[in-house]
Amino acid sequence: MKKLVNDPRRVVREMLEGLCDLHPGLALLEGEDVVIRAGLPPPASRPVAVLSGGGAGHEPAHAGYVGPGLLAGAIAGDVFTSPGVDAVLAAIRVTAGPAGALLIVKNYTGDRLNFGLAAELAQAEGIPTEIAVVADDVALRETVAPDRRRGIAGTVLVHKVAGAAAAAGRPLAEVAAAARAAASALGSMGVALGACTVPAAGRPGFTLGEAEIEIGLGIHGEQGVERAALLPADALVDRLIETILADRGHAPGTQVALLVNGLGGTPPMERAIVARRAIALLRERGLAVARAWAGEFLTALEMPGCSLSVLALDADRLALLDAPASAPAWPGGGMVAPARLLVASPPAMADGPATAPGPLAPALRAAAIAVAEALTAAEARLTALDARAGDGDLGLSMARGAAAIRALPEAAWADPPTAFARIGAALGRAIAGSSGPFYATALLRAGRALPAAPAP
Amino acid sequence: MKKLVNDPRRVVREMLEGLCDLHPGLALLEGEDVVIRAGLPPPASRPVAVLSGGGAGHEPAHAGYVGPGLLAGAIAGDVFTSPGVDAVLAAIRVTAGPAGALLIVKNYTGDRLNFGLAAELAQAEGIPTEIAVVADDVALRETVAPDRRRGIAGTVLVHKVAGAAAAAGRPLAEVAAAARAAASALGSMGVALGACTVPAAGRPGFTLGEAEIEIGLGIHGEQGVERAALLPADALVDRLIETILADRGHAPGTQVALLVNGLGGTPPMERAIVARRAIALLRERGLAVARAWAGEFLTALEMPGCSLSVLALDADRLALLDAPASAPAWPGGGMVAPARLLVASPPAMADGPATAPGPLAPALRAAAIAVAEALTAAEARLTALDARAGDGDLGLSMARGAAAIRALPEAAWADPPTAFARIGAALGRAIAGSSGPFYATALLRAGRALPAAPAP
Repeated sequence: MKKLVNDPRRVVREMLEGLCDLHPGLALLEGEDVVIRAGLPPPASRPVAVLSGGGAGHEPAHAGYVGPGLLAGAIAGDVFTSPGVDAVLAAIRVTAGPAGALLIVKNYTGDRLNFGLAAELAQAEGIPTEIAVVADDVALRETVAPDRRRGIAGTVLVHKVAGAAAAAGRPLAEVAAAARAAASALGSMGVALGACTVPAAGRPGFTLGEAEIEIGLGIHGEQGVERAALLPADALVDRLIETILADRGHAPGTQVALLVNGLGGTPPMERAIVARRAIALLRERGLAVARAWAGEFLTALEMPGCSLSVLALDADRLALLDAPASAPAWPGGGMVAPARLLVASPPAMADGPATAPGPLAPALRAAAIAVAEALTAAEARLTALDARAGDGDLGLSMARGAAAIRALPEAAWADPPTAFARIGAALGRAIAGSSGPFYATALLRAGRALPAAPAP
Repeated sequence: MKKLVNDPRRVVREMLEGLCDLHPGLALLEGEDVVIRAGLPPPASRPVAVLSGGGAGHEPAHAGYVGPGLLAGAIAGDVFTSPGVDAVLAAIRVTAGPAGALLIVKNYTGDRLNFGLAAELAQAEGIPTEIAVVADDVALRETVAPDRRRGIAGTVLVHKVAGAAAAAGRPLAEVAAAARAAASALGSMGVALGACTVPAAGRPGFTLGEAEIEIGLGIHGEQGVERAALLPADALVDRLIETILADRGHAPGTQVALLVNGLGGTPPMERAIVARRAIALLRERGLAVARAWAGEFLTALEMPGCSLSVLALDADRLALLDAPASAPAWPGGGMVAPARLLVASPPAMADGPATAPGPLAPALRAAAIAVAEALTAAEARLTALDARAGDGDLGLSMARGAAAIRALPEAAWADPPTAFARIGAALGRAIAGSSGPFYATALLRAGRALPAAPAP
């Protein structure tokens, strides 16, 4: 197991400590793996405390979403293991005032039991507490009832909606209703290109062949819909988005938010390529992509792969997504370009102003063509020499340069500065690599040092 | 090669297209892999255009840093390949006004040649253009002169300093001076836990053994200082930070900014664990950590590993880091907690108010103890039964529950609701897992349904 960790049994605590060290708006509970907002107002004036959590290993979820306008606190279990009742109850007690608490729970047995019991205990203590369950994974839609689906990365959008509703001062019942409505307007699905390794286990949870992927995988490596051969990114995105849309049945014209979520081992380049296709396909399907984000929102340790989430919007939900929030992992914004903005390139490398041919033009042209001929004639010898140095493209490069010299127009030979500049630019472009710019720089500088007219 | 890509030859263009689709503040040049700020003011009123770029594969660098207060544009080459002169020149022409352009260049031969020549051509066209070279990698400090070091992730901090200086309206010479001063106050070093695969090559650039790491590696997989056995995260961080500090020689009390950069395959959990130690060690060494960020700033495709950068600050540089900026990949903020904020947990699971023992207390206690005795006596039989179901911890769990019942204080037996609540809470904590909350929920609910006093 190769990870940047210390004691595998302490990864969760040390991760939370690092997060709190980095972000002065976060505080850590002593003795429980619970992160809360620093500087909460006095209980009586607190809005509904929106809390979430679950097994660790999904960073930045959930502690990264703690902050004004988002979560009041987050409860972490061991990696991929539900936190205990005491931790959840501690988080409720320390963050909730008379307005109560809403617990946003991903749909797993352990989380439902532990958060559910904590809510019951909090209620018994007089803290109004409600639960909103997120079951957004549509991967198993053919075989599993909607209320038994797993909760995955779309949960982050439910955090945002509920957090904003709470910050707006809405009462608990309305905050819970906004969260539940968002959860039922949400569909997500993922694909894994490889496994991840739970630190305490020390070996990957499953294995995939060299060209094999797992479609519809859960965020702890639970079984997906199928193992398949590796597909191009666009085809994979189509598979995920089409499944989500088939399940959700959004009417054309529906406004949606898109979340492109890297699972931990997939870098920004690939996430942008995935986002490109996802936005295009949603538009092809007649949906209005009102907001979109690509990043790491809810990972599965270092798993390579991604998930896509699509959330249908109405005016209220869009306003809640847009409401100001400040938490380490919430990117804000999400505005999408209505169409890709293309700008015409300026003309390529300086061709200089057209100048009338001077008296030296024939001589300049003849000299340059002679150089070009010599380079072409020497191609085989230059290649052989270069091969001795371990390379072998010098002959070919020089022949390309010679062709570029021959292709220069009459205007290039107007006078010495122009001729040197044009030859330099032509060689820079034709030879390219590292040596093209060398020749180009030398000739351009020489050209600048030469007079335009012959000495009198 | 397992990646979320389509045609390996089109990864850079598709990545830039996805980025521009996601961010309406960005525009893409036609025909060149150049991203510029959308809606730049008219040339005459533009501040100095700060530009950066280099080979792709380092996302979000550099296009992710294009935006107000940061870069005016970014030029991408093929993966790990310098962009050509034409692309750089096009970016200068389309973004720079009379105030000119500053090119921030990572110290690689290809980039220096191509950006250098483009600057020269732009100058010749009358666009004032300067270059600031970043050579922040201290890994090879024992063997390589400072001006021959590589440029790595600390470059992002130089972008920020220069972008803010330009946005403040400073003239080109001052913007360039701020960038160069930041570059020379900067040191970075990285470690790789594995290789990355250039899409067009289709195979990893190098191989590492199961427990082998490469310390001081470059961002394209160039050679590092040594191959070593895998170390705990803290020991690796110490190695990197101590090397940076040995090179830079910051006086105690110096204010610094810290950048913890994931190389693409290292997830947020590990980055937070690394940040925790880096902040602690800088403080142990007497430095004031004024700002810190952890994230993916300048990656090497999907390479697992990280780099650390330390930038010494003066008041002006700190103000430039803090100045507002809006670019897809710039996180803003960076404020660091002066010390980790710990909050005392509220008392553990509800013990309820102390109540005077009622008339039923002896009977309640005797019944509960009888249950506990029966569970203890049946431990072996419960274990055997559970083993038939494929598990085997039921006997032990029930024995733990029995012990918890026996350990309850006298106050627990005050009346039936109290007794059931206390037994439920004790079992929930002692048995834990999934079944603890089951017992706890059942007993708590039963307790709420019972009257506190015997029926008259």
